[in-house]
Amino acid sequence: MDRWLVVGAGFAGAVLAERLASQLGALVTVIDRRPHIAGNAYDRRDAAGVLMHQYGPHIFHTNSEAVFEYLSQFTAWRFYEHRVLAVVDGQLTPIPINLTTVNQLYGLSLEPDELEAWFAARAEPVAEICTSEDVVVSRVGRELYEKFFRGYTRKQWGLDPSELDKSVTARVPVRTDRDDRYFQDRFQFMPRDGYTAMFEQMLNHPSIEVRLGVDYKEVAGEFEDAQVIFTGPIDEFFDFRFGALPYRSLRFEHVTLDQEQFQPVGTVNYPQTEAYTRITEYKHLTGQEHPKTTLTYEYPTAEGDPYYPIPRAENRALYKRYEALALETPRVHFVGRLASYQYYNMDQVVAQALATFRRIAEAR
Amino acid sequence: MDRWLVVGAGFAGAVLAERLASQLGALVTVIDRRPHIAGNAYDRRDAAGVLMHQYGPHIFHTNSEAVFEYLSQFTAWRFYEHRVLAVVDGQLTPIPINLTTVNQLYGLSLEPDELEAWFAARAEPVAEICTSEDVVVSRVGRELYEKFFRGYTRKQWGLDPSELDKSVTARVPVRTDRDDRYFQDRFQFMPRDGYTAMFEQMLNHPSIEVRLGVDYKEVAGEFEDAQVIFTGPIDEFFDFRFGALPYRSLRFEHVTLDQEQFQPVGTVNYPQTEAYTRITEYKHLTGQEHPKTTLTYEYPTAEGDPYYPIPRAENRALYKRYEALALETPRVHFVGRLASYQYYNMDQVVAQALATFRRIAEAR
Ligand SMILES: Cc1cc2nc3c(=O)[nH]c(=O)nc-3n(C[C@H](O)[C@H](O)[C@H](O)COP(=O)(O)OP(=O)(O)OC[C@H]3O[C@@H](n4cnc5c(N)ncnc54)[C@H](O)[C@@H]3O)c2cc1C
Ligand SMILES: Cc1cc2nc3c(=O)[nH]c(=O)nc-3n(C[C@H](O)[C@H](O)[C@H](O)COP(=O)(O)OP(=O)(O)OC[C@H]3O[C@@H](n4cnc5c(N)ncnc54)[C@H](O)[C@@H]3O)c2cc1C
Repeated sequence: MDRWLVVGAGFAGAVLAERLASQLGALVTVIDRRPHIAGNAYDRRDAAGVLMHQYGPHIFHTNSEAVFEYLSQFTAWRFYEHRVLAVVDGQLTPIPINLTTVNQLYGLSLEPDELEAWFAARAEPVAEICTSEDVVVSRVGRELYEKFFRGYTRKQWGLDPSELDKSVTARVPVRTDRDDRYFQDRFQFMPRDGYTAMFEQMLNHPSIEVRLGVDYKEVAGEFEDAQVIFTGPIDEFFDFRFGALPYRSLRFEHVTLDQEQFQPVGTVNYPQTEAYTRITEYKHLTGQEHPKTTLTYEYPTAEGDPYYPIPRAENRALYKRYEALALETPRVHFVGRLASYQYYNMDQVVAQALATFRRIAEAR
Repeated sequence: MDRWLVVGAGFAGAVLAERLASQLGALVTVIDRRPHIAGNAYDRRDAAGVLMHQYGPHIFHTNSEAVFEYLSQFTAWRFYEHRVLAVVDGQLTPIPINLTTVNQLYGLSLEPDELEAWFAARAEPVAEICTSEDVVVSRVGRELYEKFFRGYTRKQWGLDPSELDKSVTARVPVRTDRDDRYFQDRFQFMPRDGYTAMFEQMLNHPSIEVRLGVDYKEVAGEFEDAQVIFTGPIDEFFDFRFGALPYRSLRFEHVTLDQEQFQPVGTVNYPQTEAYTRITEYKHLTGQEHPKTTLTYEYPTAEGDPYYPIPRAENRALYKRYEALALETPRVHFVGRLASYQYYNMDQVVAQALATFRRIAEAR
C-alpha cells in the first residue's frame, strides 16, 4: 500500500491528499502546524457568530473550468462578484480606475471612447518600462498614479513603486468602460458554506488521516519510507542554508461592530490616508444575514507570517538555488505558494496541485 | 396600498410576485391551480427519497448575468453541465453531433479542421431552406439526418420534419470540435437545493400570500380592484373565443430502480427506436447520493397539458388575435410561456418577467 505524508492542509496539500486517496488508493497522513485545516483560506465563525476569514479576505475567482469543476465536487457555490472602492481625496470611487472613477473625480461626463484619449493626454512617455511607477505613469499619468498607486504601494511593500519591478503592478488594470468588478474571470463564486467546510469535504475520506498542531520536523522520522508532499516554505525545509527568502507580511485586525452594515462593498481601499491598506466587511462576501458585522483591517508589516514573496530579481535567484536542492531531494514533492516562492491565487494553487498529481500518477 | 393578484406560481409569476412585494411594497396574492408552487420547474423527493422533476428534466442555463444574479439571491448553485448521448445504430454517441460522434459512427479519426469538409461533401444543396428537414440535410446530409433527426422529430412533434418550420431545428447545432456539452451558455448550474426550495425563498415575503389548488375563475370576483399578472394560457383567459391554440404534450413515466446508477449521463435520447424520445436520470443533475435511482421516460402526445406551442404560421396568427385582445384588457398583464404562446427556457421567462416589472415600476 502506498504511504504518503502531506505537509500543510492548505489548497496545495488538501488537493493532493484528496487525489492520492481517491484516485490512487493511497494511505495519506496530512499534517499542519496550525490548529486548523484550510491554510490561509481558513474561515470560521467568530465569537459573535459572523463567518470571517482568519488570514484576510479570500475571494475565489478563476477562468479555469477544470479547477472550478474539480472544486465543485466538494461545495455548492454562492455567486459573488467582488467590488472595491477606494477613498481618494475624500471620495469613495471605483477601483480599478474606470470611466466612473475619472468622471467622478474630475467632474466630467466622458463616454467610453473618449477616456482612452483622456488617459493618453496625461500619460508620460517612458523610454523603457522597468519599475511599477513606469507602468502606471506611462498609462494614466502622474496625477492618478499619485492618487491611487504611490501611497498604496509604499504601504503594501514598504518600498516606493520606483524601486519595485514592473511585474508587481501588472495586476492593477485600468478600464475604459463602467465595469466595476474587481475581477473579470469567468467563474466568480464563494464556497456556499465557506472554505473550511469545503476542505472538510475534501479531506473526508477513509484513507486520509489529519493531524493538526504538528510540525514536519516532529514526524519526519516516522515517515522515512513515505512519499512526501511539502507545501511549507522551501527555505525552511533546507534549514535556511542559503539565507531566508524575503517576504512581506500583514497584521490583521478583526473587529466586530454592533450594527448590520459598515461599508457599501466588500472591500474599501485607503491608498492615501491611514496606516492600513484596506478594510473588508465579510458579510458582502458570504451573504450572511446577522445583526452584527465583522471587519478586517490589514496593516502591511515587514515581520510576520510569510504572505507575499518580494518580487525582486535577487530573491528569485535565491529561490532558484533552493529549487535546485529540491530537485535533488528524493521522495519529496514541493507544491504550493510557499514551496514555489510565488504569489499564487487559490485557483492557481489548485491547478498546480492537479498537475503535480497527474505527473505522479503517470510516473507509476 | 397596491393590491396584486398573480395567477400562476411558475417562474413568471414568482418573479413578479417577489419584485412587486420587495421593490414596490405591494400586497400580493399568488394563486396556482396545481397543488404546488414552481410551475413546470416543480421538483420533489419521491417515495424513495430521490429528488426528481415532476414535469420532466429542467436544466438551468443562461448567458444573462442579470438573470443569474437575480436568482442567486434565492439559491446557492451546483455546477452542472448537461451531457446527452443518443442511441444510434445500437451505439451510444454524443449529441449534438460533434467530432467524436462522426469518428465513432464512421470509424474515422478526423481532426476538427477536416470535419467541416466531411459535412460539406455530404450536405445536399437546397435552393431555399424552409423546413426543418432542409436545415439539417443542407448542413450534414441525408444519412445523419435520418439517424438523428427524422425519427426524433416525428416522435416529438407527430409531424415529419419536412412539414415543420425551419425554426424548430434551429435549436440543434452541429459542432466540429469535441465539445460534448449540451449547452454552451456561460452559466450552467442547478439550484443547489432544487427548484421548489428556490421558489420557496422567492415567495417567502411577509406581503406575499400563496393559495394553491385555486383557479383564476374561482377568485376573479374577489380581485376586481386588483392589478393582475396572468401567466396561464392566453386562449383560456378569453374562453377560447377564436379556438384553442395548439400544443404538443408529453406523458411522463417516472420509474425508481433499486440500483445506484442506470445510464452514464443525465439524458439518453432514442431517435430511432422506442416510443419514448428520451430517458433522464436525475441523480446526474442533482448530484444526490442514494442507493436507488429515479428516471423519467418522455412520451410525446397530442393530448395533455400544454407544453410545446406548435410552431406553424397559422398558430402564430391565431395567437396574434388573442394578443390584440390582451392589449385591450385593462389591469391585466400577460407574462410567461403560456400567455405568450412561445417556447421559452426558464431564463428567458425570468428575463421577460423582470422586464415586465421594470415597465410596471416606471409607469408609476
Ligand atoms: C492576505 C491574503 C489574501 C489573499 N486573497 C486571495 C484571494 O482573494 N483570492 C485568491 O485566489 N487567493 C488569495 N490569496 C492567496 C491564497 O491564500 C493562496 O493561494 C493559498 O492559500 C495557497 O495555498 P497553499 O496550500 O499553497 O498555502 P497555504 O494556504 O499557506 O497552506 C500551507 C500550509 O502549510 C502549513 N505548513 C507550513 N510549513 C509547515 C511545516 N513545516 N509543518 C507543518 N505544516 C506546515 C502552514 O501552516 C499552512 O497551513 C491571498 C493571500 C493572502 C496572504
Ligand atoms: C418537458 C419540459 C422540459 C423543459 N426543460 C427545460 C430546461 O431544461 N431548461 C429550461 O430553461 N427550460 C425548460 N423548460 C421550459 C420551462 O418549463 C419554462 O420556461 C418555465 O416553466 C415557464 O415558466 P412559466 O411561469 O411561464 O410557466 P409555468 O411554469 O407553466 O407556470 C404557469 C403556472 O400557471 C398555472 N396556471 C395556469 N392557468 C391558471 C389558472 N387559470 N389559474 C391558476 N393557475 C393557473 C399553472 O398551473 C402553472 O403552474 C422545459 C419545459 C418542458 C415542458
